[in-house]
Amino acid sequence: MKALNLNNRELTLRCDQLAPAVGNDEVLLKVLLAGICGTDLALLNGYADFNGIPGHEFVAMVVETGAGVDGRLKGRRVVAEINQWCGECDQCARKHYSHCLNRRVVGIRDHQGCFAECLVVKANTLHIIPERISDRQAVFIEPLAAAFRIVEQLQSRDYDDVLLIGAGRLGQLIARVMVLQKKQLTVVVRHAQQRKLLQGLPLDCVDESAVEAKTVDVAIDATGQQSGLMLALHALRPQGACIMKSSYSSPIEVDLTKLVIDEVELVGSRCGPFSTAIKALEGGLIETESLIDATFSIDDYLAAFALAQKKGSMKVLIKPH
Amino acid sequence: MKALNLNNRELTLRCDQLAPAVGNDEVLLKVLLAGICGTDLALLNGYADFNGIPGHEFVAMVVETGAGVDGRLKGRRVVAEINQWCGECDQCARKHYSHCLNRRVVGIRDHQGCFAECLVVKANTLHIIPERISDRQAVFIEPLAAAFRIVEQLQSRDYDDVLLIGAGRLGQLIARVMVLQKKQLTVVVRHAQQRKLLQGLPLDCVDESAVEAKTVDVAIDATGQQSGLMLALHALRPQGACIMKSSYSSPIEVDLTKLVIDEVELVGSRCGPFSTAIKALEGGLIETESLIDATFSIDDYLAAFALAQKKGSMKVLIKPH
Repeated sequence: MKALNLNNRELTLRCDQLAPAVGNDEVLLKVLLAGICGTDLALLNGYADFNGIPGHEFVAMVVETGAGVDGRLKGRRVVAEINQWCGECDQCARKHYSHCLNRRVVGIRDHQGCFAECLVVKANTLHIIPERISDRQAVFIEPLAAAFRIVEQLQSRDYDDVLLIGAGRLGQLIARVMVLQKKQLTVVVRHAQQRKLLQGLPLDCVDESAVEAKTVDVAIDATGQQSGLMLALHALRPQGACIMKSSYSSPIEVDLTKLVIDEVELVGSRCGPFSTAIKALEGGLIETESLIDATFSIDDYLAAFALAQKKGSMKVLIKPH
Repeated sequence: MKALNLNNRELTLRCDQLAPAVGNDEVLLKVLLAGICGTDLALLNGYADFNGIPGHEFVAMVVETGAGVDGRLKGRRVVAEINQWCGECDQCARKHYSHCLNRRVVGIRDHQGCFAECLVVKANTLHIIPERISDRQAVFIEPLAAAFRIVEQLQSRDYDDVLLIGAGRLGQLIARVMVLQKKQLTVVVRHAQQRKLLQGLPLDCVDESAVEAKTVDVAIDATGQQSGLMLALHALRPQGACIMKSSYSSPIEVDLTKLVIDEVELVGSRCGPFSTAIKALEGGLIETESLIDATFSIDDYLAAFALAQKKGSMKVLIKPH
């Protein structure tokens, strides 16, 4: 089969890869459409030391089921959780599957990804996609779930206003999720294009210079940069919460005394609930079409990644067939 | 009146200070007993740039009431919140008085402290002390309230086991508060004396080398040192919470990517509920007597501070009269 292959930071297209074997509790998927994520671009720069087939945002069709899997899954359109859990560790026992201590992560850690004609995943990580959701919408389920994770984490908090810093790929989805929470939402944008994509949503776009100190209950850093985190801490009221929605490439110096004196919370945030994302798309609550820049055949992967790496680009899709 | 005076990191005893004037909404207090806190020692080293009368842990008698204050307070034994709030700012409107944006802090910021024969505070920051609580117990109310703050902050969390790092002045009180929560509590101790003071409590004392990775839901750093924070993050399970219960003298480098990947929360923690601390002491739930090293007359303040600064010392008390 055709598949992209990352080896020592070099990405190539190989046409001779064997379709993976299907284990007892697994399914073989035919990838219909895949999305390039910021993490994929980081992998190319050495993040997570991953070698193999990258890619983890996708929609696919079940084409083969393992011996221990319900055969009626065959032919169904699905997405899969990127965390392939073991089912046996302390975290799995607590049903914190995305924090499985032995997890393999699709296209990121010890597991082949979706920039390929086929991939294999565990059947118990699948979600069936309702007909109303198109393939072009379904590729957003994984990052949209990550955006909904913030809502889960804020669930037990009392808060009125939210500052979202960053309106890139993930920031756009977070903005769409946060407006559903009916809070006062302000988004710090850097590019005119980001601002345009947020038009019509009940939120305020501001330049970062307009952010005042101690004025919001929740600040979300979706920039992945030290400056984004610093702005978030600057903007938070005492007892506010800073949601860190992106990984940072190196250790960052933080003034923890400020955290103590203002009793601010720093909350790391990663993967989220797929079922919530699916329901939101099915209910027409989240618009994603405007976020798609282009769709490329896997043969044109170089052009696809070049576009994805361009400053201000949003979602670039890859069609493996 | 007699009062200690901190000026440019130099602490002196002055006998010529005027008793402070009492404002309309204030009371004049005669200090019965005061405690030396870690923050007081930090003030001597320049923390918070404070000049004036230090001290904020005390029990006192109301000797004069301002024109706008109920005169029946006179003669009552009281403690006062250290945060003297304005009642007019955004935080006061939310009843987050300890985070008042214009707060003066007794003996720490813009407000004279309790290492003096008398001090003045706002009447609405007073708590009357029940008879069952002795003066030697009452001086612990402020730091005990700070320990109970952790319980407030963990209120909406589901957690089973707690690692407390540090068993010094504040750590000892935190340990006594946390055993009331009926969770599995482990305390990292450094000195035999710290271990001895925890004897008989339903908790385990361990050396820091015994702390295993990813094994607890909540870790409390009461060391105020980078190494304490690092140990806390090491010990936390994914989705765990690290309570930072002491200020750090300088910015600290933290690996925030770990925070994101494990979705760990860093929670700053400062002042707490006086009324909870008073009830716990009144109910005989918290033992404090063993934590008192010695009581000194204010005339012997040099000896008192020397003892407080000694490694492993716990609570040193000062009697201003």
